[in-house]
Amino acid sequence: MTTLYGYFRSSAAYRVRIALNLKGLDYDQVPINLVNGEQRGGDHLARNPQGMVPSLVLDDGSVVNQSLAICEYLDEVYPEPALLPADALARAQVRALAQLVACEVHPLNNLRVLKYLVGELGVDEGAKLAWYRHWIAEGFTAMEATLSTDPSSGDFCHGDTPTLADICLVPQVYNAERFECDLSAYPTLQRIAAHCRTLPAFQKAAPEAQPDAS
Amino acid sequence: MTTLYGYFRSSAAYRVRIALNLKGLDYDQVPINLVNGEQRGGDHLARNPQGMVPSLVLDDGSVVNQSLAICEYLDEVYPEPALLPADALARAQVRALAQLVACEVHPLNNLRVLKYLVGELGVDEGAKLAWYRHWIAEGFTAMEATLSTDPSSGDFCHGDTPTLADICLVPQVYNAERFECDLSAYPTLQRIAAHCRTLPAFQKAAPEAQPDAS
Repeated sequence: MTTLYGYFRSSAAYRVRIALNLKGLDYDQVPINLVNGEQRGGDHLARNPQGMVPSLVLDDGSVVNQSLAICEYLDEVYPEPALLPADALARAQVRALAQLVACEVHPLNNLRVLKYLVGELGVDEGAKLAWYRHWIAEGFTAMEATLSTDPSSGDFCHGDTPTLADICLVPQVYNAERFECDLSAYPTLQRIAAHCRTLPAFQKAAPEAQPDAS
Repeated sequence: MTTLYGYFRSSAAYRVRIALNLKGLDYDQVPINLVNGEQRGGDHLARNPQGMVPSLVLDDGSVVNQSLAICEYLDEVYPEPALLPADALARAQVRALAQLVACEVHPLNNLRVLKYLVGELGVDEGAKLAWYRHWIAEGFTAMEATLSTDPSSGDFCHGDTPTLADICLVPQVYNAERFECDLSAYPTLQRIAAHCRTLPAFQKAAPEAQPDAS
């Protein structure tokens, strides 16, 4: 059985749970408690030298790290339903939306970064929140500008089936809500995220539905 | 003719230059001066709502943003020489290495982030440098641990031909050198980067070889 090493609130693990659910795959979950530092333990470092989650361990013991690499792997090995469109340009545009979240927003608001701001730089709670909201606003403003004008957006970020872009958007919206970011300027993102959340694959992947939720 | 909107020192634009060169593609370059804020001008925002580089504009006017999405697009449309291995698991492992750089190191050390640290958070030059070097060390330690033990690493990050992982590694090493990071703990990364730099595709992509280099 495939095993996902993750954490209920990890936005990157959340992406992989959505992808696994969309593909209809069964998987075991092993929680790695990021708040308690379990990701820095020897067992986890052996499978993920970055000390991060998620890691997907396959039946034969092979390990795949990095959430987007895991999603692309799943899409290549289990092609249906597809997480990327067929056309190369459309695939690139979906990947660019996913990377807008995964390379420009989420890395800046990761737990380890917030800890560095407070611990090493002595940033206070207000400035930490402002930092968090700033990067959400930067990324979501660009994503809203793209999705509200691109004729290829539909019920989802691209057309009427969920793709890698939605897989990244929904966990990022969840995070933004948790940090009480004002999302009123992003009606298209809100509409798409709300639609995604009507699907069982997204519902089953939500942080509050995980065995380690607290 | 394909046009790359980039900036000589942008690590993400540098990746795309390497990919274009490895594929043997001709392209025009239009510099977007990030230090002068040209990325926030209306012309550039119309093609890249994030106000970032690179953007690749195709013959028909279509735009592809996000460096890894551009590289994957090039690999799908121009399959030879391949930037990813054939096997799904190996592809995932190469993508994970690329994303280790593109999602965990580079986003934290981007110019806009350094500007926020200094401008909004009042961080001094010493603490800014320590931040920069901290995230390089975190990422490179993990990458060295993987590449020094993985039997699939060779002259390059994966085997004996350049892949997406090398395309991300070399610009990150360039950045680390520019910020005088101590790289002595990463002999495998140094060996692979040095080997890449013997190839014309990497040499022609180097920041100092660009028309806007200053």
